[in-house]
Amino acid sequence: MERIGVWLIGARGALASTAIVGARAISHGLARPGGLVTELPEVAALRLVGLDRMVFGGWDIGSAKLLHRARAMAVDDRAVPAGLVAALEDDLLAVDNHIKPGFVDGGGRGAARDGKKREPLEAAVARLGDDLEQFRLEQRLRRVIVVNVASTEPPCARVPEHDTLDGVRRLIQGDRRAAVTPSMLYAYAALERGCPYVNFTPSTGATPAGVQELGWKHALPFYGNDGKTGETLMKSVLAPLFRMRNLEVLSWAGFNILGGGDGENLSNPRQRESKLRSKSGVLSPTLGYAPHASVSIDYVPSLGHWKTAWDHIHFAGFLGTKMSVQFIWQGCDAILAAPLALDLVRLTDFAHERGERGPMTQLACFFKDPMGVSVHSFTDQFRLLLDYVDEHVSRERHGRRR
Amino acid sequence: MERIGVWLIGARGALASTAIVGARAISHGLARPGGLVTELPEVAALRLVGLDRMVFGGWDIGSAKLLHRARAMAVDDRAVPAGLVAALEDDLLAVDNHIKPGFVDGGGRGAARDGKKREPLEAAVARLGDDLEQFRLEQRLRRVIVVNVASTEPPCARVPEHDTLDGVRRLIQGDRRAAVTPSMLYAYAALERGCPYVNFTPSTGATPAGVQELGWKHALPFYGNDGKTGETLMKSVLAPLFRMRNLEVLSWAGFNILGGGDGENLSNPRQRESKLRSKSGVLSPTLGYAPHASVSIDYVPSLGHWKTAWDHIHFAGFLGTKMSVQFIWQGCDAILAAPLALDLVRLTDFAHERGERGPMTQLACFFKDPMGVSVHSFTDQFRLLLDYVDEHVSRERHGRRR
Amino acid sequence: MERIGVWLIGARGALASTAIVGARAISHGLARPGGLVTELPEVAALRLVGLDRMVFGGWDIGSAKLLHRARAMAVDDRAVPAGLVAALEDDLLAVDNHIKPGFVDGGGRGAARDGKKREPLEAAVARLGDDLEQFRLEQRLRRVIVVNVASTEPPCARVPEHDTLDGVRRLIQGDRRAAVTPSMLYAYAALERGCPYVNFTPSTGATPAGVQELGWKHALPFYGNDGKTGETLMKSVLAPLFRMRNLEVLSWAGFNILGGGDGENLSNPRQRESKLRSKSGVLSPTLGYAPHASVSIDYVPSLGHWKTAWDHIHFAGFLGTKMSVQFIWQGCDAILAAPLALDLVRLTDFAHERGERGPMTQLACFFKDPMGVSVHSFTDQFRLLLDYVDEHVSRERHGRRR
Amino acid sequence: MERIGVWLIGARGALASTAIVGARAISHGLARPGGLVTELPEVAALRLVGLDRMVFGGWDIGSAKLLHRARAMAVDDRAVPAGLVAALEDDLLAVDNHIKPGFVDGGGRGAARDGKKREPLEAAVARLGDDLEQFRLEQRLRRVIVVNVASTEPPCARVPEHDTLDGVRRLIQGDRRAAVTPSMLYAYAALERGCPYVNFTPSTGATPAGVQELGWKHALPFYGNDGKTGETLMKSVLAPLFRMRNLEVLSWAGFNILGGGDGENLSNPRQRESKLRSKSGVLSPTLGYAPHASVSIDYVPSLGHWKTAWDHIHFAGFLGTKMSVQFIWQGCDAILAAPLALDLVRLTDFAHERGERGPMTQLACFFKDPMGVSVHSFTDQFRLLLDYVDEHVSRERHGRRR
Repeated sequence: MERIGVWLIGARGALASTAIVGARAISHGLARPGGLVTELPEVAALRLVGLDRMVFGGWDIGSAKLLHRARAMAVDDRAVPAGLVAALEDDLLAVDNHIKPGFVDGGGRGAARDGKKREPLEAAVARLGDDLEQFRLEQRLRRVIVVNVASTEPPCARVPEHDTLDGVRRLIQGDRRAAVTPSMLYAYAALERGCPYVNFTPSTGATPAGVQELGWKHALPFYGNDGKTGETLMKSVLAPLFRMRNLEVLSWAGFNILGGGDGENLSNPRQRESKLRSKSGVLSPTLGYAPHASVSIDYVPSLGHWKTAWDHIHFAGFLGTKMSVQFIWQGCDAILAAPLALDLVRLTDFAHERGERGPMTQLACFFKDPMGVSVHSFTDQFRLLLDYVDEHVSRERHGRRR
Repeated sequence: MERIGVWLIGARGALASTAIVGARAISHGLARPGGLVTELPEVAALRLVGLDRMVFGGWDIGSAKLLHRARAMAVDDRAVPAGLVAALEDDLLAVDNHIKPGFVDGGGRGAARDGKKREPLEAAVARLGDDLEQFRLEQRLRRVIVVNVASTEPPCARVPEHDTLDGVRRLIQGDRRAAVTPSMLYAYAALERGCPYVNFTPSTGATPAGVQELGWKHALPFYGNDGKTGETLMKSVLAPLFRMRNLEVLSWAGFNILGGGDGENLSNPRQRESKLRSKSGVLSPTLGYAPHASVSIDYVPSLGHWKTAWDHIHFAGFLGTKMSVQFIWQGCDAILAAPLALDLVRLTDFAHERGERGPMTQLACFFKDPMGVSVHSFTDQFRLLLDYVDEHVSRERHGRRR
Repeated sequence: MERIGVWLIGARGALASTAIVGARAISHGLARPGGLVTELPEVAALRLVGLDRMVFGGWDIGSAKLLHRARAMAVDDRAVPAGLVAALEDDLLAVDNHIKPGFVDGGGRGAARDGKKREPLEAAVARLGDDLEQFRLEQRLRRVIVVNVASTEPPCARVPEHDTLDGVRRLIQGDRRAAVTPSMLYAYAALERGCPYVNFTPSTGATPAGVQELGWKHALPFYGNDGKTGETLMKSVLAPLFRMRNLEVLSWAGFNILGGGDGENLSNPRQRESKLRSKSGVLSPTLGYAPHASVSIDYVPSLGHWKTAWDHIHFAGFLGTKMSVQFIWQGCDAILAAPLALDLVRLTDFAHERGERGPMTQLACFFKDPMGVSVHSFTDQFRLLLDYVDEHVSRERHGRRR
Repeated sequence: MERIGVWLIGARGALASTAIVGARAISHGLARPGGLVTELPEVAALRLVGLDRMVFGGWDIGSAKLLHRARAMAVDDRAVPAGLVAALEDDLLAVDNHIKPGFVDGGGRGAARDGKKREPLEAAVARLGDDLEQFRLEQRLRRVIVVNVASTEPPCARVPEHDTLDGVRRLIQGDRRAAVTPSMLYAYAALERGCPYVNFTPSTGATPAGVQELGWKHALPFYGNDGKTGETLMKSVLAPLFRMRNLEVLSWAGFNILGGGDGENLSNPRQRESKLRSKSGVLSPTLGYAPHASVSIDYVPSLGHWKTAWDHIHFAGFLGTKMSVQFIWQGCDAILAAPLALDLVRLTDFAHERGERGPMTQLACFFKDPMGVSVHSFTDQFRLLLDYVDEHVSRERHGRRR
C-alpha cells in the first residue's frame, strides 16, 4: 500500500507534535478521529488517504525532541492525554529522525539566538530541496506534501520581483534576504521539487505571484493562508448573521490572550502584525461596510497553549436601539489546528493525485485569509468544499459507468 | 394607493407597540429601517408593500393604552427613543381605536382576573371574525393579515379532532375549551374570514392540521411558529459550526433571564413549557445526535424587556480534549422581534397577492420552530428565502418580457 | 512525634481523595502548599499540626478504591497531576485500609442501591463509634477529628426532639429514621466518642441543638456548615462592595453547572434544596434588604468535577441608572475544597488541644452558612480568624514571659 | 443657611453635568440619593452639608452648554432620565453662568484647537484665582471646594523644582510649561486662594510635594488621585480574596472598551499612560508579589459613555491546578463617578470646617491611587472612613457633654 510523506515546517512545535500524536494514535486505534473534517460522512465520500499511510518528517530550527514537546502538551498544558504520549513514544522517536534543521535567518524565534555563519539563500533552497528528495526516496513515498505550521513571521514588504518567478529567482540568487522570508524560501523549495504546499500560517509562504508561478509550472496544487481555528472561525459564522438580519454592527472588539511559544512569538509587534492582518479581513467583506473593529493579541504565559478570546459585538437593532453579544472562546490552538492540518494533507493529496493544480479554493473554509476566494461566510465556504466533493463523487460514478 | 390591514393579536403588548411605533416612525421619515430583513437589497428585489401602507389594529385582553405602553418602552426600558414616542402620539391614539377586546379564556395572563361571564367559543369566533370584516370594510383594505404576537399560552394536549377541519369545528361548536386555546381560536377566525395568518409565538395557533385545512380551503398562506430573535438565532448559526468542523458538542446549557410581561408570563411553568419546547428543537437535527442540552428561562423583573442569555457550550476537539465557548446575548426582545413581524407581514402580503397558499416555508429563517421544514441551520434557512426571491424576480422578468 | 487522625465522612469521594493526595504529596515534598489558608504567614503564626502528622481514614458507602478515584481526578478531570497520583499509590492503598462502611439509609446516593437489611440507628451509632475508637487506638493517635465531606443529603424536617440531647437520643433509640439523617448520626457518633466534628457540607450534621449539646458535654469544638469555595465566596466579597458604595442590587441571578458525583447528586431536587439554602443566605444580611435573587444548579455531566458559575448582578446607580456586573467562575470543586478541609483539621486540632469547646466561630470564613455568626462579608469573617490568631499569639508570648 | 461652592475643573464634561443634574434633582426631590456613600447610615452619622446647599461653578475649555451635554447623556447615552434633564433646564442654565474659561495649554483635548495667543502661567494662576475669589464673594459662599473632573492629561516628567513650594513658584514664574501641567496649575491656584482641592483624575494635580506644601501652608485639606469607579474597584475587592485564600494569581489581564470624550481622550497613548499607571497599582501591594498583569483601554465610539471591562484572572489552586474567574463590568462612568464627586465635596467640607489639613487619607476608598495610604483592599480602605466617622461622632458626643 502506497504511503505519502507529510513534511511539516515547524515539525517540533505544538501544532506539529499534536498532529503527529493524533495521526499515530488514530492509526493505532488509540483515539477516535473527532475533529477531522475529512471524517464527516459528506466529505469522507471522497476516497482519501488513510492517516496510517502518512509518514511524517519536517524542518525545525529548535532542537528539543518531539517527544519532549508532546509530553509538555500532556503534562504542562493538560491538552493531550498523558497516556497517549506514553503509548506513542516509539513512534515519536522515529519521526524525530526525519526532522532536519530549518532555515535560520530573517525571522522566527530562533534567528537571534543562532550564532552560526549564515547560509546563502540559494544554498538553502538546494539543501532544503534535497531534504525533501531524500525523504521521498528513502521512505518510498508516492509524494511529499509540505505544510507550514511554524511560528508566524513578520510581514514582508512587497517588491516588484515578487510578481514573477524570474524575479523571485533573482532575489534568491542575489541573496536579497530582506525580500525573501524563510516561509517563502520553504515554499519555493517545496514547489521546485514537485511537492504540493499548504501554508497554515499568516507568513508569506506562497503568497507572491512569482512563487505561485512555480507551482503552476510544476502542475502542483497549493493553498493558504492561516488556519481558521478559533476567534476568526466564530467571526465567520457570526458576522453573516448580522448581515442576514440587517442588524448594523457598530463595533467589534476582539481580545485574545494566550501563552506558549505562539503567544510569546506574537508578543513581538512585527509578528503580531502578520497575524492581525489575516484576522481582520472577515468583517468588511461580509457586512458590506467597515464597522469600528479591533483585534488584539496579548501574551499571558500562564495560559500555555490555551487561548481565551473575548469578543464584544455592539450592534444597532430596530429604531437604532443598541444591543450586544459577547463570546468567550476557550480552546487549545494546537488541538484545534492539528486535525485541520491532517485534513489539508488528505485533500491536497487527493487533488494532486487527480492532477489538479493552482490554488485549491475548495479549501477556503480552512483558512482565515483564503487565496482567491471572496466568500467570507464560513457556511458558504464549507459549501465550496461540499460542491467539490459532489463533483468528484458524481464524476467517479460516471467514470465507473463507462 | 391600496392599503393593507395588519391585525395584531396582543396589540397592546411590547412587541406590537414597538412594531407600530417603528412602522409609523419609518413612514414619517423619523427613523431608518435598520433591522428589517425586507430592506436588504437581495430581499427588497421583490416589490413589497410599503410600511406607510399598513393600517394597524388588533385584539388585546388588556386595557392599558398603546401610547402608555410605548412610553414605558421609552422611559422604563430605555429601549425606544423617547422623542419618537412623543412625535407619534397621534398615530398611536388612532391605532388604539382599532384595538378590540380579545378572547379571554383558557390561558393568557388576563384570564384569571376577568370576572365576566364566559363567552362560548362559537360566539367568540363569530365576534372575532366580524372584527376583521369590519376593519377591512371601514378602512377599505385590500386584505387583513393577522399576526399573533400575544403572550405565550400553555401547550394544548392533542385530541383527534385537531386533525380535521370538521373535528376542529365540532370542538368549537361543542365549546370544548380544554382542546381549543385562544391562539387556535384566533387563527381559526382569521382563516375563516380569508385572512392570512402568521404565528410569531410558540402558542398552538394554526399548528393543528384541522386549522391548516381551513387555510388551504380558503386558499390562504399561513406560517409559524415562534419568532427567532436571540438565543435560538445564535444557536442556529453556532450549532452548524460544530457540525461542519466535526467537533462533538458534549453539552449545551442555556440560561435566559428577562423581566417584563413576557418574563412574568414565562415564570409560569406551563407557559414556559411551550417556549422551551420550541427553543429546544434546533440542536439534535443540526448535529445529528442529541448532546446533553438544557434551556432555562428565569424571571428577573429589574431587566424589564431586556433579555440576557448565557449559553455554555462544551465540546470535544481532537483527541477528546474538551474546550468551550460561551456567549452572552443582551437584547431587547421587542426591538428584535418588531421588525421581523413587519417583514412577515410584507412577505405574507406578497404571497397572498400572488395566490400562494399553505405554509410559507420560504419564511423558515424567521422562526424557532418553522412549519414543514427540516432545515435548522439559519444560513440554509435564509437561502430558502433568497431562492424564493430569485424565483419571483426571474419570473417577473420573464413575465415582463412577454 | 504525635500524630492525629483525620476521619473523613465520604472518604472515597473527590474531595477526600484530593485532600489525601494533597496532604501526602506536600508531606513528601512533591507539591507546594498553595491554597492552604493555614500556610499564610499571618495564620501560620499559630503552631499548627503538620500535614505529615495526619493519618487518614473514614467512612464511605461506595466501594470503589481511593486510588481509582484519584486516578480519575487525574485522567478524566485533568484536575490533579497524573504523576502525583502515580507517585502516591502506596500511600493511597494504605489509607484505603482505614476506610470503613458508612451508614446507609435515609439519604445519599448509595441508599437506594443497597439491598441489605437496614441497620437500626442505635446499632449504627455504636458501630461507627467503635470505628473511631479502634482507629485511635490502633494508630496511636492523639485525637481523631471527624470531617463530613460526603454528598449533600436532603434537608431534614425539624422535630422538637432535635432541641435537646435527650430528645436526639430518644430519636435514635426509637429508630426514628425520618428525623435522623446519616450526617446527624455521624456527628452524634463522633461527638459521643470525644471527636471534634466539622461539617463541610450543607447536610444537617451537628446543626440540631441537641447534637451540639453532646459536643458541649464532652468539651469538644465543632463547626459548619458547607465549605465556601466558589460562587458563594465571590458573593461574599462582591455583595459588601455594593453595600459600601450604596449601590442598590436590583437582582442577583446565579447559575451553576457541574458534573461529577456532586453534580449528579444535586440534580436530585431534594438534595439541591439543602445546597441552595446554604448558598442563599449571604445577600440579604449583607445588603440589609432582599433583592430579587436566585441560584440554580444544573447537572452537566461533561464538566466532570469542574464547575462553571455565571452570576448576573443588576444594580441601580446614581439617578436610578441600571448597570451590571457578571462573573464567570471556572473551578474544580475538589481542588478548591480540599485545602480548606485540611485547614479546618489543623485549626480544629489547635482549638481542641487548647481545650476550646463549642462552635468555632473563628472559622466562619470557611463556610457558606457559618454557625452562630452574623457577619457575612468574607473580609470581616477573615478578620475574625486573624483576631483569633492574634489573641493566641499574644497569649503565648505572655505565657512564655511568665 | 450657609452655602458652599463646588468648583469643577471640566465643568461641562459628562461627569460634571451628571453630578450637577444629580445634586439638583435630589435637592428638588426629583430623584433619590442612591449611589452616594455619604447617605449610608454609618457615614451619614456625620453632620454633612446638604446637596441643596451646594452652588456649582467651574472651568472648562469647551464651549458647549451644560444643558446640551446633559441632554446628550439622556438621549444619546440613555444614562440619565430624559425627564430629569427637562425638569432641570433652568438650574443648568444658571450653573452655566458660573462656568469660566479654563487654562488651555500643554494638555487636554481643547489645546490643539485653540488658536489664541498663549497665556503665561503666572497670569493664568492670577486669573484662575480671581475666578474663585469672585465666585465666593458674589455667591456669598462659606468656602469653595475645587474638584478636578477634567479629561486625563499626559503624565508630567518630574523635575526637582516639584519638590518644594519655592521650586513650583519658580516654574510658574519662569513659564516652564513642560513642567507645569494644567491640572497642577489649577491645584496651585485653588490652594493659593484657600480652597480645598480634590483630584478625581490621574492627572498630576496636587501630587508634587511643592504643591502640597502650599496646601499645608494655608491649612487646607486636599486629596486624590483618580476616582475608583469600576474595574479597579472590582480589583480592589477581588485581589484580597485571592490573598486571603492563599490562591496564587498567575495572571490578571484587564481590557476596557469605552467611547465618549473620555474614551477618545484615552485613545491618545500619552493620556492612556497616566490612566494605566493609576489602574495598575492595586495588585502587587495587595498580593505581596507581582503576577503577570496588564490593563488596556480601547476606544469604541459606539459605546458612548458606557464602559465595558472584561478581566480574566488566572490562578493556581491546590496542587497547582489552574482555574479562572472572569468578570464583565458594564457601567456608565459618569453615573458611577458623579455621586462620589459629591461625596468627596461633602467630606472635604466637613474636614475643612473642622480645621483638618493635609491629605485626607480617610478618603482612600474613593481613589484608585490614594495619597499616602498603603492599604489597597477596598474593604480595609472603607474601614479607614468608618474609623474617621466613629472618631468624629464620639468626639462630638463627648464635646456636647462638656
